[in-house]
Amino acid sequence: MQNRYFSSDPARNSAALALYDSVKGLPLICPHGHVDPRVFADPHYQFGSPVDLLIIPDHYIFRMLYSQGISLDELGIPILPPSKSPPSKLGRDINAVTTADHRVIWRTVCANWHLFRATPTGIWLRDELADVFGIHLKISSRNADAIYDALEERLSRAEFRPRALFERFNIEALATTDAATDALAHHQAIRDSGWGGRVIPTFRPDAVVNIDTDGWRANIDLLSDVSGIAVRDYASYIQALEQRRAFFKSMGATATDHAASTAWTETLSASDAQAIFERALRGEATAKDAARFTGHMLVEMARMSSEDGLVMQMHVGSYRNHNPSIFAHYGRDMGADIPIRSEFTKNLKGLLDRFGNHPDLTLALFNLDETAYSRELAPLAGHYPILRLGPPWWFFDSWLGMTRFLDAVVETAGIYNLAGFNDDTRAYPSIPTRHDVWRRVCADWLAGQLARGFIDEEDAFDMIRALAYDLAKTTYRLD
Amino acid sequence: MQNRYFSSDPARNSAALALYDSVKGLPLICPHGHVDPRVFADPHYQFGSPVDLLIIPDHYIFRMLYSQGISLDELGIPILPPSKSPPSKLGRDINAVTTADHRVIWRTVCANWHLFRATPTGIWLRDELADVFGIHLKISSRNADAIYDALEERLSRAEFRPRALFERFNIEALATTDAATDALAHHQAIRDSGWGGRVIPTFRPDAVVNIDTDGWRANIDLLSDVSGIAVRDYASYIQALEQRRAFFKSMGATATDHAASTAWTETLSASDAQAIFERALRGEATAKDAARFTGHMLVEMARMSSEDGLVMQMHVGSYRNHNPSIFAHYGRDMGADIPIRSEFTKNLKGLLDRFGNHPDLTLALFNLDETAYSRELAPLAGHYPILRLGPPWWFFDSWLGMTRFLDAVVETAGIYNLAGFNDDTRAYPSIPTRHDVWRRVCADWLAGQLARGFIDEEDAFDMIRALAYDLAKTTYRLD
Amino acid sequence: MQNRYFSSDPARNSAALALYDSVKGLPLICPHGHVDPRVFADPHYQFGSPVDLLIIPDHYIFRMLYSQGISLDELGIPILPPSKSPPSKLGRDINAVTTADHRVIWRTVCANWHLFRATPTGIWLRDELADVFGIHLKISSRNADAIYDALEERLSRAEFRPRALFERFNIEALATTDAATDALAHHQAIRDSGWGGRVIPTFRPDAVVNIDTDGWRANIDLLSDVSGIAVRDYASYIQALEQRRAFFKSMGATATDHAASTAWTETLSASDAQAIFERALRGEATAKDAARFTGHMLVEMARMSSEDGLVMQMHVGSYRNHNPSIFAHYGRDMGADIPIRSEFTKNLKGLLDRFGNHPDLTLALFNLDETAYSRELAPLAGHYPILRLGPPWWFFDSWLGMTRFLDAVVETAGIYNLAGFNDDTRAYPSIPTRHDVWRRVCADWLAGQLARGFIDEEDAFDMIRALAYDLAKTTYRLD
Repeated sequence: MQNRYFSSDPARNSAALALYDSVKGLPLICPHGHVDPRVFADPHYQFGSPVDLLIIPDHYIFRMLYSQGISLDELGIPILPPSKSPPSKLGRDINAVTTADHRVIWRTVCANWHLFRATPTGIWLRDELADVFGIHLKISSRNADAIYDALEERLSRAEFRPRALFERFNIEALATTDAATDALAHHQAIRDSGWGGRVIPTFRPDAVVNIDTDGWRANIDLLSDVSGIAVRDYASYIQALEQRRAFFKSMGATATDHAASTAWTETLSASDAQAIFERALRGEATAKDAARFTGHMLVEMARMSSEDGLVMQMHVGSYRNHNPSIFAHYGRDMGADIPIRSEFTKNLKGLLDRFGNHPDLTLALFNLDETAYSRELAPLAGHYPILRLGPPWWFFDSWLGMTRFLDAVVETAGIYNLAGFNDDTRAYPSIPTRHDVWRRVCADWLAGQLARGFIDEEDAFDMIRALAYDLAKTTYRLD
Repeated sequence: MQNRYFSSDPARNSAALALYDSVKGLPLICPHGHVDPRVFADPHYQFGSPVDLLIIPDHYIFRMLYSQGISLDELGIPILPPSKSPPSKLGRDINAVTTADHRVIWRTVCANWHLFRATPTGIWLRDELADVFGIHLKISSRNADAIYDALEERLSRAEFRPRALFERFNIEALATTDAATDALAHHQAIRDSGWGGRVIPTFRPDAVVNIDTDGWRANIDLLSDVSGIAVRDYASYIQALEQRRAFFKSMGATATDHAASTAWTETLSASDAQAIFERALRGEATAKDAARFTGHMLVEMARMSSEDGLVMQMHVGSYRNHNPSIFAHYGRDMGADIPIRSEFTKNLKGLLDRFGNHPDLTLALFNLDETAYSRELAPLAGHYPILRLGPPWWFFDSWLGMTRFLDAVVETAGIYNLAGFNDDTRAYPSIPTRHDVWRRVCADWLAGQLARGFIDEEDAFDMIRALAYDLAKTTYRLD
Repeated sequence: MQNRYFSSDPARNSAALALYDSVKGLPLICPHGHVDPRVFADPHYQFGSPVDLLIIPDHYIFRMLYSQGISLDELGIPILPPSKSPPSKLGRDINAVTTADHRVIWRTVCANWHLFRATPTGIWLRDELADVFGIHLKISSRNADAIYDALEERLSRAEFRPRALFERFNIEALATTDAATDALAHHQAIRDSGWGGRVIPTFRPDAVVNIDTDGWRANIDLLSDVSGIAVRDYASYIQALEQRRAFFKSMGATATDHAASTAWTETLSASDAQAIFERALRGEATAKDAARFTGHMLVEMARMSSEDGLVMQMHVGSYRNHNPSIFAHYGRDMGADIPIRSEFTKNLKGLLDRFGNHPDLTLALFNLDETAYSRELAPLAGHYPILRLGPPWWFFDSWLGMTRFLDAVVETAGIYNLAGFNDDTRAYPSIPTRHDVWRRVCADWLAGQLARGFIDEEDAFDMIRALAYDLAKTTYRLD
């Protein structure tokens, strides 16, 4: 339905439809996400089974099934190899061989699909089946096999290969997220192939910047290798990071990304930075060292961005790997990352005091604590020239989450201090659906503003275009 | 009106009515509340005056009147006996004899009933008068005496005795809340009477678990007495608690309940637990001891629940007895309990690390800080198998509070990680009204989801039944 | 449009209009704001240019333009004189002469007016142009000169002088905000002039109470001068403050106002208060001293209010002058004040323990953290007789901000524990527009309550009058 999800109020409904119609054909700007660049490197890349494509990589789906007692094994999630896996503390036999039959997994998912009623995951998959795969059956036990068969048939066809979908999706630019130590071989292959799709990397240095990361010391060695700069001290470390940023930029990157549990920022003295870095090299850094060093490096990254023009992104407030048993047996990104409270007014001051007024810097903020929207983020973005607010992240990338976001920030920051939309997904075929939901939310929200007379039609049509397309493009410098 | 409180949008209104109609006749599941079991023990029990029934026990009502300068004395709230009452610090003569004339109290309440406009208390009492007592007059000075007379007349009739109302209300099960040291004499009397109503106890051990409780030492002696196990050390203390749980279970209990100002949980070493317990026995425990011991006992209670199958409830975030003058003269539960911020992601980790994945445990969480709904509670419940989210508690047991709750949690946790509804009331005749409001909110909310096309009719009718009935029954194991 | 901003639902729309119509003609009660009393002291006072009137004093406007890279210099904001201005750290030449041509500034504002789409600032200025100045052109580059010309023409006319507008606006009482050390010369001139407009001062002692204020020591000398009481120690300090309060009251004041970053309150021992005050006089007070002394003085101010009857206001939670470069060059109130989290349940206990039940005290609370509305403020106001909740402050003085406020607090506190509306503005000609928005929000909100059947028509018409007029008048004792 063209007017799906819009308010049932007739005046708002038709206004929303007109606004949506004006932007539904615009290309997709995908400035932040987690699609694997490998799928574009090989022109003949084919996705595996429907479960390989839709279930196993999608922690949004399997976390909910897990919450109702369905084991990750039943869903085909691979356990870590024995060397990485400590003895089980779970109540079930987690060393059981994972279910090999993807059709059985699919049936389990479909038999429990009621769990996703009224959730974004439920909406995305339904719309994706219909709009991308042309499958109009309701997900249920009854239809499980028919949907599986139809998906298998589609995935075998050339028009469902990644590059073909990229073109069908009308993606203007898609940024992946890549470790600072990544040699970007897939990105090089894409460029070498002569294909016209704009797939670009994003510089994400967390694993070499957060000194409490598992394997940080090894990552520093890797950084030395890939940069060609032997990291022996803080000065050479900074040089190596600058080398990597320049390399990423040469490969098309326009942005960096930084994850932190809090938004704490501060500038350490040169001697403190050096001392903490050396303690970290010796494996002697404390938890406090780690927090301070991350805060310092965020400011240092802002300094570099003010010089090289890479747009800086901060994702704040996720308590990663909250469930130790799941982490021990399955590893990261298993749906056990839980938000915590976040604070920006005080925490970001270290960075803003030095770079908040800089004419060449853009800093996009994302968080998982909705209370900061109206209290801190909108007032900050409504003052500091460098700030843009990222769209609702993760659990809040949803109809109501987006609506609450617009309600909370626009009155204070306007829409022109927003960073537009990004899909932030590793579920590649869900990309058009996710953008569609955002565009529909914005159309519905603006139709509400229009129906009440806060804005007029000229405003509304300008604003929907900005929200659907322009703001993401200009914020991320994707011109 | 059958469609009262529903959205005035015609499509949503009729859908809400159809959904509501499908569940309005379902029995009431009341798995958590504070009705006095005494009223069921005696088949001929009669309520006192309208003020005894509706005003004096209801701190929702008298707190609001107090906030506008009406003294608790004028409302008939008894002051504590002198031995328990320190010298007055209030601005008025709190030792005045409390007003004896209940009709005068009732007139005072009615004359100030405008204070309750647009509040749940106002809605409950209006609907209760109409639906339970068949009184359709608006509460006001003008109607005060007529309503009082009508209530007196009703209360004198056999059909308004507690057991008769239980049957008329179509209550399938009603749980009371009882101290760990309670001998459950009224529950025994109910069972002995052969009456068919299912009234069951709930094990609430706060007064023996929170070592900073007034009178804790005496409660421990009482625990020894009722359990028959002399509590001399931590080991015998745990044994006595296990004895009481087994006794409660034998009396029909399916759940425990635990109040804490924060959700802090941790497992103490055996020697630390023993040492703190012994300091407490000697009256030497510190505030820090008390906080740690409560956190430890919550984990220990989870351990016991994982073994005996009693569903565990946690109610977090009330600052009890905030007003010292009111507490000194009138005691507990006087409308002066004020919410504080609450945190779960970090605080609950001690318990979740050990029991979060347990196949036999259910933990229902309640809190008074709405910001935790979307940020912490829904993500936690959308991952951990043991967790269920209790319905909006106390101040949030209201039309808008429930709507905000559904808006905040369903997109992330779905509805199947919710614990359904409970009325949590000591105001027995308000029970059907409170369930009715919940069922109407859910119908209205689902009608909105349906009107926008997020869910279809099959989904909506399944979901309203789950929310109105099934989820409470299965969460609390009341099959 | 008479029904602008109301819900587009037909039933709600017409009910809202009827409710609004019943109060739109009521006089304006303006119990808290920042209009300069100077404009009323001279009967022939004329406003300057449109930019002098509408842009330069309005940090709501220039902060948003600044957030998009437009310098404050371009907007005519004066830089501090050199002696107060440290060397520049900004990325641009902040010592450039400020733009002198107000028409050019106006064109810059108009060319960027899209930034204010869907913001209260955008709505206020549009409505103010139409309703106060009779200018019905949309603000845009195209109309910039025509609007400027029309404004200049209006401002040259006698009917647009401050006193004439006061009468046209139908202001019943307007309170200014004045330092404790202010001699109130303009207020005296207003009284001496025989003009009938009720313009009254408000006692704001922050600069002599918060010992960490810039220039506190000099302010104490000023306090000695204006009070005629030599402040040598804590006792004489308290005497001087009491003298000033009595003077303000004699000049018509009915209220005091207190700003604090947190709501912390405590009663220091006499010796501690004296010791901290003496350290402050010697310039040796610590940050902790300052926080404790502010907390203590808030209780002391409550004590004085309980005696002299001045209504106490607290504005909590703004991090002032967050941007050090802007502060250094332009000073205070430059749009760089950012909210922080606030807490009341624990912080206000020091004050409430002593005065929460006082029959003669009124304390109105304002804050910038919406999460405290339902969690702490409404429960506190729904119990303590002294408390009233101020209307949504600053960033939340907006359509959605007000709606969220009513949604969050009324169910728990009712409307009769609210302080009604105040415009809190220095933008004098925007006053009727701001009250109009509040009255429309309340009409729309009550129409929603009415349409759903929570309240009836009698309730709704009583409530709109209370919200629009009565509550502000009675809370601030402006009878």
